[in-house]
Amino acid sequence: MSTELDLIAAIQAALGPVPARVLTGSGDDAAVVRADGVAVTSIDSVVDGVHFSLSTHSPADVGHKALATALSDIAAMGAGPGEAYVALGLPPGFEGALELVEAMRALALAQGVAIAGGDVVSAPVLSVTVSVTGWSGAADRLVYRSGARPGDLVGVTGELGGSGAGLLALRSGVTEGPLVERHRRPQPLLATGLALAGAGVSAMIDVSDGVATDAAHVARASGVTLHLRLPDLPLAPGVSAEDAATAGDDYELLFTAPPEARAAAERAALATGTRVSWLGDVRAGRAVAELHAADGRVVDLTGYEHG
Amino acid sequence: MSTELDLIAAIQAALGPVPARVLTGSGDDAAVVRADGVAVTSIDSVVDGVHFSLSTHSPADVGHKALATALSDIAAMGAGPGEAYVALGLPPGFEGALELVEAMRALALAQGVAIAGGDVVSAPVLSVTVSVTGWSGAADRLVYRSGARPGDLVGVTGELGGSGAGLLALRSGVTEGPLVERHRRPQPLLATGLALAGAGVSAMIDVSDGVATDAAHVARASGVTLHLRLPDLPLAPGVSAEDAATAGDDYELLFTAPPEARAAAERAALATGTRVSWLGDVRAGRAVAELHAADGRVVDLTGYEHG
Repeated sequence: MSTELDLIAAIQAALGPVPARVLTGSGDDAAVVRADGVAVTSIDSVVDGVHFSLSTHSPADVGHKALATALSDIAAMGAGPGEAYVALGLPPGFEGALELVEAMRALALAQGVAIAGGDVVSAPVLSVTVSVTGWSGAADRLVYRSGARPGDLVGVTGELGGSGAGLLALRSGVTEGPLVERHRRPQPLLATGLALAGAGVSAMIDVSDGVATDAAHVARASGVTLHLRLPDLPLAPGVSAEDAATAGDDYELLFTAPPEARAAAERAALATGTRVSWLGDVRAGRAVAELHAADGRVVDLTGYEHG
Repeated sequence: MSTELDLIAAIQAALGPVPARVLTGSGDDAAVVRADGVAVTSIDSVVDGVHFSLSTHSPADVGHKALATALSDIAAMGAGPGEAYVALGLPPGFEGALELVEAMRALALAQGVAIAGGDVVSAPVLSVTVSVTGWSGAADRLVYRSGARPGDLVGVTGELGGSGAGLLALRSGVTEGPLVERHRRPQPLLATGLALAGAGVSAMIDVSDGVATDAAHVARASGVTLHLRLPDLPLAPGVSAEDAATAGDDYELLFTAPPEARAAAERAALATGTRVSWLGDVRAGRAVAELHAADGRVVDLTGYEHG
């Protein structure tokens, strides 16, 4: 118990000053934060041996990734940065807690997010649960999965497949390089999501399960067909289109936009440091995502073995 | 994975309709909730074998208690009910997830709280992390630990020591009775905390570590001495004053109030179904809580073995 209190004090010192929105941070029963019109909240847990392995990820990697993936959900809504609340489950003898928290702090700082509260408990293996809240002035400024309409274009930021290739590299013993880094340290696209929302995109999701699966989520929520061209997927170096379509953990933003918002979306993304690729369009029909090869036939990647 | 998705669907079905404040519940990247002036948020984790044992607590007990203790932090700020976000770590073969979630749902419904989001992951042992947000129109309507002033009275709701006595009973093999129930199913005092805030109390904390320790937290945050009379502690049946002062998990509200708010605080608590006992007063001096016996001498309960 005393160790946990000591650790909490060390973590508080490491976190440093909190942004002006946070009126009362740790030290009372709860954090008090000045609100905007609507709160946008997501909670995610990662567990050693299930979502990562301490044999291939440092404590800093784990902290970074846990916060990054939670923030990616906020980015996909087009909400602005807010606060993170972090619950750590620490196994006996684990020495990496401060390193883990320090990596979270660095990412939070870079993204304009405050770590406003937390809990530290004993647990059999390392686990990190992050609840993140972003803010928006009004619910209709956010971007939902359900907003895709026939005639919209389908776009995606950045490159696909890098994280999956990095994971394969890690498992084969490669411990460095850009793809490995991409897997270990995904970057949440909060500024890009906010800019795309402002540019008038109609639906958005972050690419956590692979474009094929995540496009299907949008199709189902919107009741439309997402018609995607496999050859137009932006590929990370050395990755096949099939791998890029099915690899998870890229945390790029997949979105739909009416044709008149095409240029604005490209500019908005570029202004935040990322390129948009246009993959296809939205059609009336079954609520599915279809991947099409260069010759127009539908490619079925169900059961495709990534890598 | 499919099992987790099935479970999430079953959980969503069990949760039923969400209150009007929740604009978008599960099914998108994040929940969207209409805000009030300030958000009041706390996160807490409980782990099997550390904070509870499935040998003495049913899955329903675990779910209830995890949400109740998190909500108690919101009650202690004097905030109104809001949303809970729940991350479950489920061990292989655990059959109690729906029972656990159903108990959470029942408590949330009774307290006017929505379970607006969640995550379900595999884990070596059962763990439940709850992030709760309450709402208030303005930060200065909330009650902090730091607000106690010399001349204030010290009050507490309900009875003390019941949960600790229930835990001892459980450990000795007793599995039923009001004290055991008290330990298994603590009731968060959200309505009472909100009413006490409206009545003008100056500082507040929930009794999670025992009155002696929690009063010291208020004393430290406020820079004052809390002078408490041990014989005036409201005791659960069969509990000694020493046990009541050091037992945790009661989740009553300990507060300070200026003398002119005394009657209003009593009325506010009574209107929400609980009695106030007055335990002492606030004095200038060292930032400590002092427990005094009937003869006035200071009682030192440091290292007191509860039970």
